[in-house]
Amino acid sequence: MDRVLAADIGGTNLRLALINRDGVFLDECRVEARLSRHNKTTTEDAENYILDALQNAIAPFLEQNPVVDIGIGFPGFFRGDSGVLAGSPNLPLLQEFALAERLSERLSIRVSAQNDALCAAIGEQRYGAGRGKSNLLHVTLGTGVGGGLILNGVPYTGERGMAMEFGHLRVVSRNGRSCGCGNHGCLEAYASATAVSQRFAEQSGIDTDARLVYEYACDGNTIASEILKETGLYLGLAIAEAVKLLDIETVSISGGLSHAWHLIHPPLMAELNDNLIPPLRGKINVIHSTLDDNAGLLGAACIASRRQEH
Amino acid sequence: MDRVLAADIGGTNLRLALINRDGVFLDECRVEARLSRHNKTTTEDAENYILDALQNAIAPFLEQNPVVDIGIGFPGFFRGDSGVLAGSPNLPLLQEFALAERLSERLSIRVSAQNDALCAAIGEQRYGAGRGKSNLLHVTLGTGVGGGLILNGVPYTGERGMAMEFGHLRVVSRNGRSCGCGNHGCLEAYASATAVSQRFAEQSGIDTDARLVYEYACDGNTIASEILKETGLYLGLAIAEAVKLLDIETVSISGGLSHAWHLIHPPLMAELNDNLIPPLRGKINVIHSTLDDNAGLLGAACIASRRQEH
Repeated sequence: MDRVLAADIGGTNLRLALINRDGVFLDECRVEARLSRHNKTTTEDAENYILDALQNAIAPFLEQNPVVDIGIGFPGFFRGDSGVLAGSPNLPLLQEFALAERLSERLSIRVSAQNDALCAAIGEQRYGAGRGKSNLLHVTLGTGVGGGLILNGVPYTGERGMAMEFGHLRVVSRNGRSCGCGNHGCLEAYASATAVSQRFAEQSGIDTDARLVYEYACDGNTIASEILKETGLYLGLAIAEAVKLLDIETVSISGGLSHAWHLIHPPLMAELNDNLIPPLRGKINVIHSTLDDNAGLLGAACIASRRQEH
Repeated sequence: MDRVLAADIGGTNLRLALINRDGVFLDECRVEARLSRHNKTTTEDAENYILDALQNAIAPFLEQNPVVDIGIGFPGFFRGDSGVLAGSPNLPLLQEFALAERLSERLSIRVSAQNDALCAAIGEQRYGAGRGKSNLLHVTLGTGVGGGLILNGVPYTGERGMAMEFGHLRVVSRNGRSCGCGNHGCLEAYASATAVSQRFAEQSGIDTDARLVYEYACDGNTIASEILKETGLYLGLAIAEAVKLLDIETVSISGGLSHAWHLIHPPLMAELNDNLIPPLRGKINVIHSTLDDNAGLLGAACIASRRQEH
């Protein structure tokens, strides 16, 4: 068996794919699943709600595509590679929840689960921009800002599975914008798609999404251009902090906002190099994902197929 | 043979010790060796100057204490555990310098060499405050601010040996104090002994060293107290950034300034917890080194005795 299912779980949608060893998508679909939109008040109810939602979304696709392993990228913190969800900022009732094991019982296949941004890092290192690199810092620029780290070829999760809270690195030290985590000045409050559309609305009076802010910038709107330039600057600052700690040579970036690469990348590199210690300047490669939205699904497929290798 | 020599190399002094497997100091001495005070202009001359200085300082102690291994903690970046110095901010002529191998030829014993702050981390994890922890972030508060990281029991050096430039994390984003590395707003520009004495001189008009600033604070001088409190705040900020990336539970701090622990630690913890994401708040232990100035020597002894184990 060299085919696995992969699932990439978002707040409102869930993507599923049947993927082979070469990373080729043999089938795929997108299912609506409003995981965080529930009114459950007990842990047990919340757990069952999530399991129901995942089972209902995955079972029909699994029936069409029978496999023995599924890998899941999920927005939360996992304990090592145990498949146990330590916690999830968007689903606060779930704590120390054996997601992989419980879902495995329901679907009657083996389930592996890991943080979504770490899955994207794993996919990028195996099939994408980080191919051949044993060390990789991967940044996802979506509704939020996530990070995944590969050290010596191994996904790094930290002591409690909470490593690489990249979006919550502080990029503005005083009077910074407020962030969903409760702090101020976090990268996510400046460089996520949500922040870009908010900042554009504040300055232009136009309510729109980050994709259209990018189009405005391409059409010569200076407010939009400036906001995307600043997005690059803040990303450069945060990457500099990570590089000063980790001495990592390759950084890859995926996600919707990374489509504005030609506007974001030049200020990012300038700010990154300005903030590094001199011997590291000019030595760091920051590259655009070659997998884009599929990085997470491919990484989820990798964690599923690792079970087959053992 | 269960005894090794250990050397801790500073800018003006060099400490030597004969240490046994239990971390007991059997003999020790301090030698003046002005390694960075030379007027050499070629790489070859600078290398020989350093080798001469180290040989002259170590040979007499080695004669009294014959051993087969010496471990050296040196202020610079090393490639993995090869003993090759990739570079040193204070000795810019030295690059890709096979320090361990060249010194081994001169002294006719096996030489291991590693970054001084990483040696302190290794010593602290083996014999000190980090004993029994497989993950440890260690911070040295001396003339500069250094950092060493142990992950899964293994010293982490990064791709070019330049990991854990902890003193150059940026703690002030705009109009920060200038740092020796050429940037502004680095932790080292606020929390090193040098920075503490400079900031005190600027605000009080009194030229003195960090040890006396601490004594002023103990005697009720509010300028001195405020500066040490701010030192704690900046340390807390920088540790928060490292924890958000690495999810490390235990942080130890050594070095002269850490003697002001009762003034530094409370604001440090408050600022650290304020800046963490909520699920990590209250979970991080920041502890005072139990080895103090000896952490680096004990770590150097560890890297020397590892050669005997292989």
